[in-house]
Amino acid sequence: MEMDALPADPAVQELLRPYPVRISLPVQWGDMDAMQHVNNTVYFRWFESGRVAYFERMGLLAGSEGSGVGPILHSTHCRYRVPLTYPDTVWVGTRVTEIGLDRVHFAHRIVSLAHGRVAAEGTAVVVTYDYREARKAPVPEPVRRRILALESEPVAVAGGA
Amino acid sequence: MEMDALPADPAVQELLRPYPVRISLPVQWGDMDAMQHVNNTVYFRWFESGRVAYFERMGLLAGSEGSGVGPILHSTHCRYRVPLTYPDTVWVGTRVTEIGLDRVHFAHRIVSLAHGRVAAEGTAVVVTYDYREARKAPVPEPVRRRILALESEPVAVAGGA
Amino acid sequence: MEMDALPADPAVQELLRPYPVRISLPVQWGDMDAMQHVNNTVYFRWFESGRVAYFERMGLLAGSEGSGVGPILHSTHCRYRVPLTYPDTVWVGTRVTEIGLDRVHFAHRIVSLAHGRVAAEGTAVVVTYDYREARKAPVPEPVRRRILALESEPVAVAGGA
Amino acid sequence: MEMDALPADPAVQELLRPYPVRISLPVQWGDMDAMQHVNNTVYFRWFESGRVAYFERMGLLAGSEGSGVGPILHSTHCRYRVPLTYPDTVWVGTRVTEIGLDRVHFAHRIVSLAHGRVAAEGTAVVVTYDYREARKAPVPEPVRRRILALESEPVAVAGGA
Repeated sequence: MEMDALPADPAVQELLRPYPVRISLPVQWGDMDAMQHVNNTVYFRWFESGRVAYFERMGLLAGSEGSGVGPILHSTHCRYRVPLTYPDTVWVGTRVTEIGLDRVHFAHRIVSLAHGRVAAEGTAVVVTYDYREARKAPVPEPVRRRILALESEPVAVAGGA
Repeated sequence: MEMDALPADPAVQELLRPYPVRISLPVQWGDMDAMQHVNNTVYFRWFESGRVAYFERMGLLAGSEGSGVGPILHSTHCRYRVPLTYPDTVWVGTRVTEIGLDRVHFAHRIVSLAHGRVAAEGTAVVVTYDYREARKAPVPEPVRRRILALESEPVAVAGGA
Repeated sequence: MEMDALPADPAVQELLRPYPVRISLPVQWGDMDAMQHVNNTVYFRWFESGRVAYFERMGLLAGSEGSGVGPILHSTHCRYRVPLTYPDTVWVGTRVTEIGLDRVHFAHRIVSLAHGRVAAEGTAVVVTYDYREARKAPVPEPVRRRILALESEPVAVAGGA
Repeated sequence: MEMDALPADPAVQELLRPYPVRISLPVQWGDMDAMQHVNNTVYFRWFESGRVAYFERMGLLAGSEGSGVGPILHSTHCRYRVPLTYPDTVWVGTRVTEIGLDRVHFAHRIVSLAHGRVAAEGTAVVVTYDYREARKAPVPEPVRRRILALESEPVAVAGGA
């Protein structure tokens, strides 16, 4: 898993450019199901790995910063475009599209090196949750600042005035 | 996995009533991740199991009917409502909400027996695919008829006239 | 997951009789891999679920009893006998074959209802670990007594006298 | 997944040297379970990926070579040595220790880059199976020759004379 590097193929680079956090993951033979394609649940594991890499960059992991505020997954979506098979390597690009008062919206893109194409795209909404108080919490200011520093594309930002 | 039966709890029965295909699945200890809740990918495995049970009822599995037409997953979504832990048993309700020309729209509901509540809701779009011709195919007439026979709730139906 | 009950089929009952802890689990469609049989890793998930059910019965879960002593997996083995496919239901029988000074030896048996036969057999060695002291700990006396109460078959017991 | 290359760390190189087939795999966050270590089943997925890489090198995949002879897993074992956590990268070394009349014995080693140590070791017995005849088959001669060419360490070889 090479963080944030870009693969050699310029076409693949272009597909990943809008995503500031990028990881690469091998397709394992056992990721395939009886239809002989990578199973639909595996893409969500890849999205999760992309988000965790982003969380590390934005300083949002449970108990990190001593704030007790961590992420909780609200909802997620995947649109499958190209069926994948072993062997292959995928790159997972992750970006933030919107910072809400108590949530962050992510976009994910899976690029297959074997196909040189987008294999799937997805979204996820993550709520910032105060695990000590057991309730939703505002997105911490340092987290918000790190997201904005990471993203060169415009990010919709809620509230704050 | 008891197919289509209903659990004893009347509140849970009510939550599953709109879903003609129902299966029950145990939460396994290993379904939990490091946050000590059932991992987000496991819900998609449960949705898949619900869809496969529905496919069996509607006669849509690859190569079934000798038509060569089988299902391929186009997209799927999950909205998480209650974090789950081992031990628990979930019921997965699956219904069809729309029959398109070359696709079927599913709605899934996960009900937790431990909570007596909806733990998650989801959707999936499945394209009917002719694996011999390698292209999308119309939803076969017998499949359409079986769906309509299964569903007592209204189903949006595209085209045909 | 029905704990410790026995299935209706008398031949299957016989196969499970030596195992005091028994759970049943559905085979899910997604448990199959590209060879169109249940993937080899799934059997270890089933063994784990069997052990966790046994741990609950013997009072050995991390932090339980306030002793800080919990289980840690030392090694595990599986011998595959019958390839499994969806749909099926498996019963997982778990018994203790030996209580060491700081470890417990388990035997697992997977019985397929579709085949009415043993589909796999396995073993696992679990070390009792003091998570506060970060070292192996003797098997707690109450745990040892509960194991002996559960097992009607002879159990090899180390040390103590 | 870099096939057969060796990592930069000389200590890790030394640990992998006896294994002619080597792949590297990232630990994903979701590989951890509620005990906050990589779950025991994940090691078997890694072993499987190592074997599949070896199968490719020895020309043994179902239907390959037009012989109809492919691998079927007979049994597998894992001895866990160091609990693993995300983030980490593991190298999986795979070698053949014995060629039987109708089976091949593998040894696996998992090396953690974060620890610079062996995290687990395992074995697997794979039977060569004629899927057309539905019975065990002798290890094909070309497969046997490729194994012997890959292995610099001595390999026990059954029969043949």
